[in-house]
Amino acid sequence: MTAVIPPSVAAARGLVEPVLRDAVARLDPLTSRVAAYHLGWADPAGLPAASGGKALRPALAILSARAAGGGQEQGLPVAAAVELVHAFSLLHDDIMDGDRMRRHRPAAWTVFGCSAAILAGDALLSLAGELLLEEGGLPGLRAARHLAVATRELIAGQALDLEFEQLAEVSLAECRRMSTQKTGSLLACACSIGATVVNGPAPLVAALTAFGTEAGLAFQLVDDLLGIWGSPETTGKPVLSDLRARKKSLPIVAALTSDTPAGERLARLLADPLPLSESDLRDAARLVEEAGGRAWAETEAKHRLDAAEHHLAGADMPPDVRAEFLDIVRFLTSRGH
Amino acid sequence: MTAVIPPSVAAARGLVEPVLRDAVARLDPLTSRVAAYHLGWADPAGLPAASGGKALRPALAILSARAAGGGQEQGLPVAAAVELVHAFSLLHDDIMDGDRMRRHRPAAWTVFGCSAAILAGDALLSLAGELLLEEGGLPGLRAARHLAVATRELIAGQALDLEFEQLAEVSLAECRRMSTQKTGSLLACACSIGATVVNGPAPLVAALTAFGTEAGLAFQLVDDLLGIWGSPETTGKPVLSDLRARKKSLPIVAALTSDTPAGERLARLLADPLPLSESDLRDAARLVEEAGGRAWAETEAKHRLDAAEHHLAGADMPPDVRAEFLDIVRFLTSRGH
Repeated sequence: MTAVIPPSVAAARGLVEPVLRDAVARLDPLTSRVAAYHLGWADPAGLPAASGGKALRPALAILSARAAGGGQEQGLPVAAAVELVHAFSLLHDDIMDGDRMRRHRPAAWTVFGCSAAILAGDALLSLAGELLLEEGGLPGLRAARHLAVATRELIAGQALDLEFEQLAEVSLAECRRMSTQKTGSLLACACSIGATVVNGPAPLVAALTAFGTEAGLAFQLVDDLLGIWGSPETTGKPVLSDLRARKKSLPIVAALTSDTPAGERLARLLADPLPLSESDLRDAARLVEEAGGRAWAETEAKHRLDAAEHHLAGADMPPDVRAEFLDIVRFLTSRGH
Repeated sequence: MTAVIPPSVAAARGLVEPVLRDAVARLDPLTSRVAAYHLGWADPAGLPAASGGKALRPALAILSARAAGGGQEQGLPVAAAVELVHAFSLLHDDIMDGDRMRRHRPAAWTVFGCSAAILAGDALLSLAGELLLEEGGLPGLRAARHLAVATRELIAGQALDLEFEQLAEVSLAECRRMSTQKTGSLLACACSIGATVVNGPAPLVAALTAFGTEAGLAFQLVDDLLGIWGSPETTGKPVLSDLRARKKSLPIVAALTSDTPAGERLARLLADPLPLSESDLRDAARLVEEAGGRAWAETEAKHRLDAAEHHLAGADMPPDVRAEFLDIVRFLTSRGH
């Protein structure tokens, strides 16, 4: 079943979008045009469109302010800033990874060119900091520092991902570290930055960070499964896209390092310098499954979700906030199933 | 004559480099390797080298703290942060502009690839904010806000520059606005951010901003002149490089909009879709001169320098600080003459 978007996520989108639009309106005409397209508000010609992301990170950021006793309005600037950093990273990652599709539409760099997409990503990253700092005072300072450290981690994860492209072999531990940095760090930041802003107690910030890190890893595992077995309707990308791009995603690395005949056959197939045919790709997906990569990723996603729930259960927060956190993380990890 | 590097610039380099090295050491191995190369501390293999920039912006930032009565140590974090933003912008601009040489060496993207260079630029931009914010307290907050706004302007200037590539005609006013944003905004920030950090009086911050904006424009005019008539020893780039790249720099746009026969011949030459021969390039340089573009840029650089000195004279600061500011800005605008 495809899970229904939790009400708190839909509400967060409605709250954060005006803040994001105001912020993007400060940018010069070129980068604001690219940003409006990338964020799903405009088509390539700049005409209004509606195909934006789901505002999961903003919803988590707002919840995290409420977890520490703050109001949702205190979470709004951080929610917008986290979404801007997320948008920056997708813009630049698509260029680096050569990904031509994003959310069922051509990636921004294929529409506006690499230079404009690089510059728009730069603008969004810088704008995220500007937005937090103009709130003034120490809450904005704490939030901006929190976000800057998470951004450094996010970049470190993407750096590992780039380095993997040059390596013949990647261990499961390295791959997990990459996913933790690339997906876990910003999700952990989203889950805890609201609590940082309202100066919540350190144990709560730590528990929410641990919750977000585990949830991020569970989310990445599900995303990696979709990258092989997801339908284009769910992923917005072609079928078997991660195998097509020979990405070293978690289920693929689990299969490659499984020490099984299927894992060895998969390694030989992916090492072939010639382009993979559709039939090769289907074989590769079957070999990942046969080598246990699919089952491992499914079980691991469940374990990470359990660990996330455990951290959440141990944190002191209003019961309705905890329930909404759970709703979102379960939604995140049930897409396309 | 080639001016001698002012002592305050050499001193600033010695003070700021350890701060920069500490900051860059936090980054992941890939982006810190690219950054160390780009900043001139390492060769492509990561072995020590010494070919970094001149630390002009850090020297200005430190002076600006002293102008407001602060110590040079109060200017160090902002000096490092401004240099990181400058390094980020050069890294990304070289990719966007297709510039293959930077400071007598191959540009980072030609050595490490576009993806690694994009990511390293991202890392440096984010690190600049992180550095300022960890100082804690309101001075860091003020500085980070100041730098974020200047970065937005800098990006707007680069956006205009990218848009110029698509335009058949660019007016001198548009070209000047682009240069003011692209070069003036970060130089103005360097000249005033130290005063912001030590909470200097608003009129001083305003005067230093105006001084830096005019100095930045003077600097850009000189740089544009060097981009046509500078020797490779001075510029670190091939001769006639701006004409080769058909850049719409200030002297070129002044010539194109001069309403002279030479300006019209220049326009026809540059509009030719075929690659320009060495003889075409020499002709183009001669036409810029004949159309008055060179004389205009030289006079304009002098006017901007005068305006900068006027703003400096009107600002209240210790005489030795004023003298060092003057030294630097005169050095900036006398390179290669």
